[in-house]
Order: sequence, then C-alpha cells, then structure tokens
Amino acid sequence: MTDKNRVVIFDTTLRDGEQSPGATMSHEEKLEIAGLLDDMGVDIIEAGFPIASEGDFEAVSEIAKNAQSSVICGLARANFKDIDRCWEAVKHAKAPRIHTFIGTSPLHRAIPNLTKDEMADKIHETVCHARNLCDNLQWSPMDATRTEWEYLTRVVEIAIKAGATTINIPDTVGYTAPNESADLIRRLIAEVPGAEEVVFATHCHNDLGMATANSLAAVEGGARQIECTINGLGERAGNTALEEVVMAMKVRHDIIPFTTGIDTTKLMNISRRVAAVSGFAVQFNKAIVGKNAFAHESGIHQDGMLKNAETFEIMRPEDVGLTETNLVLGKHSGRAALRSKLADLGYELGDNQLKDVFVRFKALADQKKEVYDEDLIALMQVGSDVEDRIQLKAMKVSCGMDLEKRADMTLSIDGEEVSTSQTGDGPVDAAFNAVKALFSHRARLQLYQVSAVTEGTDAQATVSVRLEEDGKIATGQSADVDTVVASVRAYVDALNRLLVRREKTGGDTPEVSYKDAG
Amino acid sequence: MTDKNRVVIFDTTLRDGEQSPGATMSHEEKLEIAGLLDDMGVDIIEAGFPIASEGDFEAVSEIAKNAQSSVICGLARANFKDIDRCWEAVKHAKAPRIHTFIGTSPLHRAIPNLTKDEMADKIHETVCHARNLCDNLQWSPMDATRTEWEYLTRVVEIAIKAGATTINIPDTVGYTAPNESADLIRRLIAEVPGAEEVVFATHCHNDLGMATANSLAAVEGGARQIECTINGLGERAGNTALEEVVMAMKVRHDIIPFTTGIDTTKLMNISRRVAAVSGFAVQFNKAIVGKNAFAHESGIHQDGMLKNAETFEIMRPEDVGLTETNLVLGKHSGRAALRSKLADLGYELGDNQLKDVFVRFKALADQKKEVYDEDLIALMQVGSDVEDRIQLKAMKVSCGMDLEKRADMTLSIDGEEVSTSQTGDGPVDAAFNAVKALFSHRARLQLYQVSAVTEGTDAQATVSVRLEEDGKIATGQSADVDTVVASVRAYVDALNRLLVRREKTGGDTPEVSYKDAG
Repeated sequence: MTDKNRVVIFDTTLRDGEQSPGATMSHEEKLEIAGLLDDMGVDIIEAGFPIASEGDFEAVSEIAKNAQSSVICGLARANFKDIDRCWEAVKHAKAPRIHTFIGTSPLHRAIPNLTKDEMADKIHETVCHARNLCDNLQWSPMDATRTEWEYLTRVVEIAIKAGATTINIPDTVGYTAPNESADLIRRLIAEVPGAEEVVFATHCHNDLGMATANSLAAVEGGARQIECTINGLGERAGNTALEEVVMAMKVRHDIIPFTTGIDTTKLMNISRRVAAVSGFAVQFNKAIVGKNAFAHESGIHQDGMLKNAETFEIMRPEDVGLTETNLVLGKHSGRAALRSKLADLGYELGDNQLKDVFVRFKALADQKKEVYDEDLIALMQVGSDVEDRIQLKAMKVSCGMDLEKRADMTLSIDGEEVSTSQTGDGPVDAAFNAVKALFSHRARLQLYQVSAVTEGTDAQATVSVRLEEDGKIATGQSADVDTVVASVRAYVDALNRLLVRREKTGGDTPEVSYKDAG
Repeated sequence: MTDKNRVVIFDTTLRDGEQSPGATMSHEEKLEIAGLLDDMGVDIIEAGFPIASEGDFEAVSEIAKNAQSSVICGLARANFKDIDRCWEAVKHAKAPRIHTFIGTSPLHRAIPNLTKDEMADKIHETVCHARNLCDNLQWSPMDATRTEWEYLTRVVEIAIKAGATTINIPDTVGYTAPNESADLIRRLIAEVPGAEEVVFATHCHNDLGMATANSLAAVEGGARQIECTINGLGERAGNTALEEVVMAMKVRHDIIPFTTGIDTTKLMNISRRVAAVSGFAVQFNKAIVGKNAFAHESGIHQDGMLKNAETFEIMRPEDVGLTETNLVLGKHSGRAALRSKLADLGYELGDNQLKDVFVRFKALADQKKEVYDEDLIALMQVGSDVEDRIQLKAMKVSCGMDLEKRADMTLSIDGEEVSTSQTGDGPVDAAFNAVKALFSHRARLQLYQVSAVTEGTDAQATVSVRLEEDGKIATGQSADVDTVVASVRAYVDALNRLLVRREKTGGDTPEVSYKDAG
C-alpha cells in the first residue's frame, strides 16, 4: 500500500467465525460468502484451516481458484505438514497468503511443553519454510496480549527475520483495552528491529465488548491490518465486527483518519447472508446491521422533533445498503421485475436459476398479498431439492390443546416413497418423529429456531435446524408460510447435508482438531 | 462516595431501554425488573419519564415506593410541568433523584428555536426549580458530544451554579470514540468552575460499536457515573451494556482500577428477564451474557489443549451467574425441590404462587423427561390467566402440505364461551384468524418470534407476540412444547394486555410524546 493511512481489511468469517460452536457452514455456503466478501472489496479472505479436514481443504482450494480481487489466506499451525497442506490449497489463488501461528504466552507454551528457546527455534524454522513456499506470509503469536514483553519482542523479531511480511498480534481471549492495544503495537513497531519492513495486524475478540475500539486503537498505534468477521461472528463473544470498524473509520474520519477498500453499501446484504448460513441471528440492537440500528422512529409516537434526519442520525441507511422502500412485488409481477429486484438484493441469476426461483416466487405470491425484500431473501436461501436423497412428499399434521399431536407423512428416500403416522409432544415434534421413523438416524437436534421474516400473520416463517452426528454438524433452512412445513423441510434439508458429509468423509475418519489462532 | 475509584452504576433499562421501538414493557414487568436491579446493587434506577403517560407516572411512583437500596430517578424535560410531575412520582422513594435535560447542540437548539442566551436562561430557571424540589439533581445537555465547546462549558457551569449535583454528558447519537470521550470529561472537569463539586456521568450509545470503551474512557477522564442498560437495550444500536462495563472493570481491574456495587452473579438472570419482557433476544455472540459467551468448547471437537481453563477463559461462568449444571428437575421432583431451584434462579415465591407454578411444572414434566433451568424460567414468565378477559379453552389445528390449514377454537370472553372454525395460510395464521373471528379487534401484529428454550424436539417453544393498536403496544408471551398452542396463548396474552391498556388510558387520550434524553 502506498497510502500510509490505508487499512487492510482481513476477513476471517470463514475461519475464526466458522469456528464458532454451531456456526459450521457447508461447502457451497463458504463459496458464496467468499464471493460476496471478494465483491465487497475485502483485501484478504482467510478462507479456512486446510489441514483441519478434507472439507476445509477443498473449500480453501476452490475459494482460491474463484477469487477475483481478494488475497486468499489459509491457516496453518507451526509445523511443516500444516504449512505444506495450507500451501497446496491457497496456491491456486492469483494472490495467495499463508498464515502460520503458535501460542506464545506462558499458558500456551505449557501445552506443547516447549521452553522459550525451543519455541523460538520452531518459529524460525517454520516461518522460513513457509516463506520459501509463499512470498506473502503472515505470522501470529497467539495470546500475544498475555505474552511476556521480552519474549514477545524476541519472537516477533525472529519471525520478521525469517521472512514474515505481516505480523498479527492477537488478543485471543478478548482481554485488552484500547490504550493498551494502541501501546502494544506502538511499542512493538518502535522496539523490534525490522518492524518497519512489515505490516502489523490486530486481531481482537469481544469478550469485554471492546473489540471494535481495541482494533481502531491498534490502528492508531500503527497497525495497518484489521482482522474481523461479518456480524462479529466467532467463538465466545466473537471477533471484531467488520461492519463496525469500517463504518467507524468512515463516519468519524475526522478523528480516525484511515480508509479501507470496502463498498459499505454491501454490508447489509452480506450480514443477512452470514446470519442465515451460520444460524447466528443478529440482535435487533446490534450496531450498524441490527434490525433497529436505524429504527429510531418506528413504533414510537414522535412529536415532530425529527425535522432534520441528522438530529439523531450519524449515517444514512443507504450507506450500509439498507433500502428505504422494500415493498415491491406481488402476484402480478413478472420475470423481469423479479430478476431486477433480485439483482438489487445482490443475487445475479442465470436463466435456468431464474426460472426455478420464479416458480417458487409465484407460489409464494399466491399465498401472500405483498412480497417484501425479506421474503425474497428467504426464498433465495432455500435451494432446489432435486438432488436430495430425502424429499418431503406429503404431510398432514393435527394438534391442539389436550389433543393427540399426530403427523402423517410421506417421504421419498433414494427415489422410493415411504409413509408413516407418528405422535409427539407438539406438531413439530410429531413431524420430526415421523421423519425419524422413516429414515433412521442418530443425529441430535442442536438448534431449532424459527423467525418471521416479514410482519403480519401471513409472514413466511424461516426455520433453522442444526443437527449433529459424530461431531459433524449440518444446518438446514427453509421458509414457508406454514411453520410446521418449514420446520420439516429444514429438518430434511439438514439431514440431506449430513448425508453428503457422511459420504464425503467416509464415515469415521477422525477430523484433525484445532483451536483458535487468535 | 468516599472512595474516589467507586463508579456509580445508573441503569436506564426502564427509561432509555424501554424507549427502544417495540421494547415497551408492562407495568408489572417494570416493577419486576426494578426489583432485580435494586437487588443486584444498581446505585440509581432511572425508572421512566413520568410526564410521558399515565402508565409511566404510575410505574415510576410504584418503583419509588418499593425501592430498597437504589436511588430512584425520573426524567423530565426543561419545563416546570415536566419537573413537577417527575417529582410527584419519585418523591415516594427513600432516595429520589430528578433528571432534567435539554438538547444543547446546534441541531437540537434549532428545534425549540431558542437562541443560546434564551436556552441558557431556561437551563438556569429549570435547574433552580428542580433543585428546590429535590436535593439530588441530575442535569444533561443532550447531544453534548456535538455541542460547541464554548457553549457546553457555559451551560454546564450554569447548571452547576443552579444546583445540579450530577452532570451527565450524553453521546446521544453514538458518535464519539474513546480518546475523545476521555478528553471531553477531563477538559470539562479542568475548565468548568465548580466542576469539583459535582459528579460527572457518561451516557453512551453503541451506534459505532464503541459504547463500552467510550464509557470506560470517560471514567478514566474523571466521570464517576456510567449510564447503561441491561443487554445494551435501547434505541437504534442501544446504550452501553451494564454487564460489559461492570465485568471489564472487574476482569481488568489492573488497568481499569475502578469498582462498582454490582453483584455480578446476578447478571445472567436479569439479562434473561430483560430479553424476555422486551422481546429483544440477545445474540449468541453477545459479550458476557450471550449463549456462546462461555461456549468455547461445546460442539467443536477439542484436542485436549484445554488443560487449563484460563487458557481461553478470562472470567468464570459462575462470576456472571451461569451455573454449570442446569439439568435438575423431572416428573418426580417435589414442591420443595421446585421452590429451592426457583430460589436459585432468583424467584422467591409465596405459597399460593408456588402452588400455581407447581401445577404447571407437573404438566410440563409429564411432557418432557428433563426440565432444565431455562424451562423453569420460561414457565415463570407465563403468568396465571385467571383474571384475563379472554381465555383459550379448546383448540384443534390441522395443517400440512397442499392441505387446508384449519383451526377449531373455543375462547372464553368475559366468561362466555364462543367457538369458531377458521382457515389460514398456515396453522398459526389459521389459529390467529380464529381468535380474530371470536374477538374482533384492529390490533396489528408487529412481531411474531419463536425460540426453543432447551435442546431437542421436546423443547418448549417460547413465543413472543407484539401487537399494536392506535400507537399502543402490548407484548404477550407463552411457552409450550406445542408451538401452535404457545403461539395462540401468546397472542391472547398480548390481546389481554392491550385491553388492560385500553381501559387504563380510556381509549383515545393522546399520550405525551417524547424523544431520547441521551
């Protein structure tokens, strides 16, 4: 970067975000999110941890092949096998990066039981090895904010000498505060020989609610890369939220005079997609992308004080891609109107895709008078099920107070139709029991979540179902005006994904397990 | 306070939080939350805006009467009528406070169209008037962070001379950054004559995701009161989250050496209650109180690196009241076990209440094998309906794919039983249509939200329904293993609350409208 105030945005939604318990994404979802990140102007996408599993390796490889403008980065622990595997995945990118790390704090040094000198040697040799593979090399001392100052400067210097081009300073446990965060970077740049040759990065977690402020303070201290995720997704309280740091630099450019390459009008769409595929809903009062972030008027009887929008507004909804008028389509809307509206929402469809979506749109428009943006987004999130092994063919459910709750169901399993009638504690429970009776499985329901995507009793319900089987997780989603139908479709969707994962991994290959790199 | 590092916690969940579009709470809910805040050690509770409506006035009055340790504060604009009404409500407290405010930035001065001098006179006379009523007087220049420095120091000095004992500096639009926040308070204390005689307070909004850091920076700059809300509830992106500032001072006491009077082990319970009564769910990755805040292990296959909890944990779940083992009761559990468990969860019940709850607990335990803490909390959130005008007596619903969705329902309305059979787009829509057919009303469904409170298909679904009629909002809640039953109960609950509000306000008394004081 020639501009000394340009901050590199390093998005780790697909690595640190996806590591969040229960936020696991499918291969296709990862590719979709990577495409959106690339398109939005994210400088570097950390696409995964290639050695962690075959699935991670394939996702990183394919994201690397598809990348247009973004640098594609993969994570690797401090050993040759991890680094080689990472390189095998990212090397397909026009601009690849390897990111290797090791925990340098006393608590983390104790785990592999290495002395300070042994760890220093390991850092030297692994960074040299990685740099021989890839010119663009990032190194992180995990838990840097709890590492002794003398040792931290020593290992950072070793990594720089061995060829690292970016040094990332992770606040792994979300422990730091703004002044401390700024001072740490400032002192490292001042005291470590060779620091002027590399870019310093900040990687914060939000355990104390200060990740955004800590990241911006680090930039003030001299960091020029912020590591972050969409919606602040990530383990525990999550990572720094991309949308918050980017909008803070934009809105308060007078006192935070840094720039990024992000097209902020795409923030809202990508936020919704990440919320949908991860199953991690964004709370109403979340900064920037929450449903209420710009809703200072609705619902409250105003007294006309709001003569000037600036009175209570420091950014415009349009700046983050929130369109004001979202009532658009109805049963008389044609294919061109649908295609144009979907393009506005960020979906570019081919003719065949459009045809499929149009059929489902018409079915929805027949049931609802008004089809909102949110309805269309929900519609797009439900894929076609033609290739699924299990398909819902027919269902009838009855329930009520002090009555037996019963579901009569027909599924097509590998092309063969089977039927049953089952009871349960409620209509959804009865229906899920029917699925289990027809297709026996050991998967455990981890999450069952329903939300209405638009207002009114004819709102589509969006249901997310997360299943876990032998450590493998699959999320299914569906939207329908009938909550029970949406629930069963989401359950069947999750089951189908689990079957794909079963086939891909061969059933009992233990996946390499890992822990946060920052 | 004699300890110069003691920070006063001023909670405004019931005023600024409740002002959040759609978060309106009932009278009983306000009293309950106030009791929990008082019990947790909150120094000052801002209980409402007495002039805003009859309901606000009654809530503040009753909270004032019930308060044990907390100071009870009410909000008032800069006019005698507001201030007198506020005093009428808070005067019942052992320790009352009046909080009066006016918007001092150019944008806010333009609204009442006052010159700087005219506004200065108004501040002088209203603060004098309020101080004559109440010794404990807080004054706020709304939008302080966008007020010209010269004018800000001028009006703060006027307010101090007129008798204000606390000067609150609101960042009304969530515009500031930590260094700026610290500098502002530091300069005010240094430059305003008489500043050493008063307490400075900070009131931040989270629009750029920095409310927590800004509040703590203000304390570093000399503020000794933090204004905040549970879960960061509040308009737009909300207020500073109480749980975040309190835990940050506790966890990082080494560099943020301030103390509060909060019993942090009560944070989780009050967070859940506020989420439930406001209908504003807390996102999984919310700092401190999110479902995943301490969940760095679950769901992910760990490799045994976690030999020491401190490795990835800077606070213990117990510190915020999250109990490790929450599987407790079943169908064989007796009344004493239930009472004891409920006491652990923060519910102290009289014999009659316990009797009612025990009946519902047994009904639930019959349907579920395992009754979790969350199930009990959900159970407690559903009140007894003996006094409700509308009661659900019987219901049968059938639905499915490509089938008519039909609800047969019997309601008791003012003691008379009426029945109908209605269709709809889905089972919930059909059931809601049946309610509407039996009890005609114009209320609009603003929110319909379903969540499972425990895992598994036999989980209780908690449903929140928010209805709006002529600007009045009522939220209903219910929990049941049958989603459709829970939905209808929640709808009927909301309708009953709306009826109570109709009766109380006489139908068409326009409520005084108002805007944020910070």
